[in-house]
Amino acid sequence: MIMTTVLDKINSPRDVKELSMDEVPVLAQDIRDGILNRVKTIGGHLGPDLGIVEATIAMHYVFDSPIDKFVFDVSHQCYPHKMLTGRKEGFIDKDKLFSITGYTNPQESEHDFFTVGHTSTSVSLATGLAKARDLKNEKYNVIALIGDGSLSGGEAYEGLNNAAVLGSNFIVIVNDNEMSIAENQGGLYKNLELLRETKGKAELNFFKSIGFDYYYVEEGNNVKALIEAFNQVKDINHPIVVHIHTVKGKGIPASEKNKELYHYAMPGWLNEDNEIVLPSSMPETYNSLTADYILKKKKEDSTVIAISPATPGVTGFTQDFRKELGPNYTDVGIAEEHAIAYASGIAKNGGKPILGIMSSFIQRTYDQLSQDLALNNSPATILVCWGAISPMDATHLGIFDIPLISNIPNIVYLAPTNKEEYLSMLNWSVDQTQYPVAIRMPFGEIISTGIIDNTDYSKLNKFKVEEIGDTVAILGLGNFFGLGKQVKNELEKKLGINATLINPRYITGCDEELLESLKQNHKLVITLEDGLLDGGFGEKITRFYGNSEMKVLNFGAKKEFTDRVPLELLYERYHLTKELIVQDIKKCIN
Amino acid sequence: MIMTTVLDKINSPRDVKELSMDEVPVLAQDIRDGILNRVKTIGGHLGPDLGIVEATIAMHYVFDSPIDKFVFDVSHQCYPHKMLTGRKEGFIDKDKLFSITGYTNPQESEHDFFTVGHTSTSVSLATGLAKARDLKNEKYNVIALIGDGSLSGGEAYEGLNNAAVLGSNFIVIVNDNEMSIAENQGGLYKNLELLRETKGKAELNFFKSIGFDYYYVEEGNNVKALIEAFNQVKDINHPIVVHIHTVKGKGIPASEKNKELYHYAMPGWLNEDNEIVLPSSMPETYNSLTADYILKKKKEDSTVIAISPATPGVTGFTQDFRKELGPNYTDVGIAEEHAIAYASGIAKNGGKPILGIMSSFIQRTYDQLSQDLALNNSPATILVCWGAISPMDATHLGIFDIPLISNIPNIVYLAPTNKEEYLSMLNWSVDQTQYPVAIRMPFGEIISTGIIDNTDYSKLNKFKVEEIGDTVAILGLGNFFGLGKQVKNELEKKLGINATLINPRYITGCDEELLESLKQNHKLVITLEDGLLDGGFGEKITRFYGNSEMKVLNFGAKKEFTDRVPLELLYERYHLTKELIVQDIKKCIN
Repeated sequence: MIMTTVLDKINSPRDVKELSMDEVPVLAQDIRDGILNRVKTIGGHLGPDLGIVEATIAMHYVFDSPIDKFVFDVSHQCYPHKMLTGRKEGFIDKDKLFSITGYTNPQESEHDFFTVGHTSTSVSLATGLAKARDLKNEKYNVIALIGDGSLSGGEAYEGLNNAAVLGSNFIVIVNDNEMSIAENQGGLYKNLELLRETKGKAELNFFKSIGFDYYYVEEGNNVKALIEAFNQVKDINHPIVVHIHTVKGKGIPASEKNKELYHYAMPGWLNEDNEIVLPSSMPETYNSLTADYILKKKKEDSTVIAISPATPGVTGFTQDFRKELGPNYTDVGIAEEHAIAYASGIAKNGGKPILGIMSSFIQRTYDQLSQDLALNNSPATILVCWGAISPMDATHLGIFDIPLISNIPNIVYLAPTNKEEYLSMLNWSVDQTQYPVAIRMPFGEIISTGIIDNTDYSKLNKFKVEEIGDTVAILGLGNFFGLGKQVKNELEKKLGINATLINPRYITGCDEELLESLKQNHKLVITLEDGLLDGGFGEKITRFYGNSEMKVLNFGAKKEFTDRVPLELLYERYHLTKELIVQDIKKCIN
Repeated sequence: MIMTTVLDKINSPRDVKELSMDEVPVLAQDIRDGILNRVKTIGGHLGPDLGIVEATIAMHYVFDSPIDKFVFDVSHQCYPHKMLTGRKEGFIDKDKLFSITGYTNPQESEHDFFTVGHTSTSVSLATGLAKARDLKNEKYNVIALIGDGSLSGGEAYEGLNNAAVLGSNFIVIVNDNEMSIAENQGGLYKNLELLRETKGKAELNFFKSIGFDYYYVEEGNNVKALIEAFNQVKDINHPIVVHIHTVKGKGIPASEKNKELYHYAMPGWLNEDNEIVLPSSMPETYNSLTADYILKKKKEDSTVIAISPATPGVTGFTQDFRKELGPNYTDVGIAEEHAIAYASGIAKNGGKPILGIMSSFIQRTYDQLSQDLALNNSPATILVCWGAISPMDATHLGIFDIPLISNIPNIVYLAPTNKEEYLSMLNWSVDQTQYPVAIRMPFGEIISTGIIDNTDYSKLNKFKVEEIGDTVAILGLGNFFGLGKQVKNELEKKLGINATLINPRYITGCDEELLESLKQNHKLVITLEDGLLDGGFGEKITRFYGNSEMKVLNFGAKKEFTDRVPLELLYERYHLTKELIVQDIKKCIN
């Protein structure tokens, strides 16, 4: 348990209202200590939370949560709110850090209304709360808190455009810390800059232009100024934006300086001085392979362009990488829909776009994948990272990308199993001009065969038979090819079966010839995929065999939102260990 | 062939540049005649095309297509462009109307760059074209033409925000006809109104606020004024919006008056006077049932609220309906992402939202379905209409909603097969507070059993056995329950098999108990679904039986974008006739 002073007596927002102004700075420091304690130990969002401490205190001082309702965008900035609403133990008590999530969560507290972990949703969700309030003839404040970075997302804009005509109380607090995860991107941010420079007085005002009333607070880390502002807008009868200018990473000099680096930290990243010290040399990863490949390829072809929707770090697009690429790199901001359409346009006009995106965030752009990209057969390359069953929060699961992408016509979705395959697929994709291609980046440590892969991937849907056997055929897709090998060995050991081992490589089609040939001397085909079973790869194999004697077992994740469930438990639950799989096989073929 | 005069000599944009200004009004009339001829005969978009005639002439007069590149948003306004780029026969020659599509299409012409039929995509796609141009060091104009209605969509905003910082030539023509399909919705439109009133001079300017240069043209149906404007911005070295004020439906008095009604017309809707006369009484449809239900329910419960993302017509939300509902109806504009999040927010705060949306457009909101709705278990009701295999354009297929929705955890997706079931499911969904529910509205004429359905749908995934038989079990989902009946009869007639007929009702889960029991005296289960096979309902049934002796045949659509393929051909291709299905069954069980 870390030492706090004023925070000790805060058990609910009511206690915040009792504070003297002298106690407020102490409380702010207590909260910052709590944030640091949590992030150092179990990881989490640092910069956004450090910057919003004063605003959160002021919000709870002025408004009456949970009667007045706060919706926190993406929840990267909800830690102080959690500490003031009965959940401080999740920050200060080392034994209880895991008792609360890093995102808003209605199951934890009546002060949270939604489980949120994707960006740009707060205004829309809050508009719904406000509309229901009006239909019920109730009176209270509905407040969405959204960062400037999240404003580039289409859903935020759709929400603002609609909230503006709600005709009743609605408050949007724009937490302008001059950053997204990386730098902000887009024309909007010039306007925010103008508004900051003019202390909110510029006539040209994005928020007003879409119908909001507007209030500017220059000192966004000054509790008194914030209380005054919030008191001004409390119980207002129409939609208003309160634009507060805060410092991301406030309170830690290193964090105030390198805002991107300190956005998020993993356990152990922060040292005793609250600094992140990056190692001078990093081991090779699939990210570094990707970055190296793109840098090299761009030297050969000036139309190669890397694209990120505001998450360059996840695919290894480091600050150095971005600098070196110059105009051959675009961060589109939090704007996944645009990212795909933009890539499609570049590809259609002869460029070679390579978009890196997290599995969980490609969900934000289904229609663009379908209409802008696939229907137009634009030869862009999409690298899907973090696609795997994982102990992540329910908001960031990487199990839905296969059902999402692989059931769209025309897209070729590839699942490499090692370094050489990955690089070969990547290079094939970038060079070819026939298909939109997505590649599910291998997850975890690099596996290398040491043998260059010269496969011509334009021969679509040719699975690779790694080892020929009989009775049981194992289709180990992507990340789970290794599990497939384990199962093969276990089958040999336990049942004396010399199984066939297949690396499907293509997620989006069946190798019908091969599957047909397996009927000759196999009784059972098993599929292993590191993702959702429903709508996934395995079901297509099963459908292929539906009219035959072949039995098929599909292994993968169940259709559920899991929340920070340890990987071992998930593997157990889904029968994703060699032992459980071989047990299931035994039951099936006996 | 209809009579035209100036259009006769226009075979490519080059010919437009040769015209005298006296010929221009005649050409405009020729184009309008062509639009009317096509729409009267085979249906299509009327109002948007009539309004953009002059602008399109001016665009081709000033710019050099296809070197200069036009991207038409949603393509509702591309008919004049098609007529000026070698495709006039598709409008004036009655034998060739079907030779061209109603949307831009690169396979038809080098003057089209994308197949487009969903809204709000043009700016992003064009930004990609422009970026590739810059990477290749080429010089020409890239022009996106977007309607004011499409500006409410998040993808348009993401595109504008990014295009603004492109740093090179980029022209967005905003065709402001003061309408979406229905009225425009949202705060943005107050600003467009202000800009029109001030002839573009207001300081408060949405486009400038996100970083665009700006040019206003009051007379958007005056070719001379437009030519002057386009000459001003041609070859400009930075992004600019040209805001042109046009009249939707221009040239047809009735159309200029009732802009919503004349947005689109089906074959035969327009009479000789180019007027649409609605019948005084309409037959009962699933739409009218829906509207009647909502109106009645709202009288009992003031928190019932109907929502449409700018397409009220498709679910029967008529002008009268909307008027009667008043504040209990929200058109969010073209903003499907917001629509879902808004519905989630309303449901979370005790309201009863009912959102009507086309199958093809629900694609625009996958992540909101997953994160804002399903993860939060918000009890909203989503009515998915036009979900069916159809002879539609490739841009408007209704076959993807089952894979899209049914593989998201927590959502209950229902497939009613008749009027009574539909109303019962709808009422259950609106009253319950446990699940997000989507209902696939039956497609086509009303089927009525005449017997009120009292099923308690909270017992999830209970399939309904309609007729008990043996050997073959038929799972006829939703629209295809009727086909299931036909197959049952045909099986009796041709093979003497008394098949079991099942109405699954639930798309999102398996009735494992029932499926297990079928093993006793059935050899084969067939699934029939009016949608895509890949990732769909049938595959889940097949997976269930993977480890058993039961054979399974899945019938549904192949994974492909079909483009205006007659339904009979599709049914033939996919084996969706009773004869072909029984043939397949015969092969399988012999």
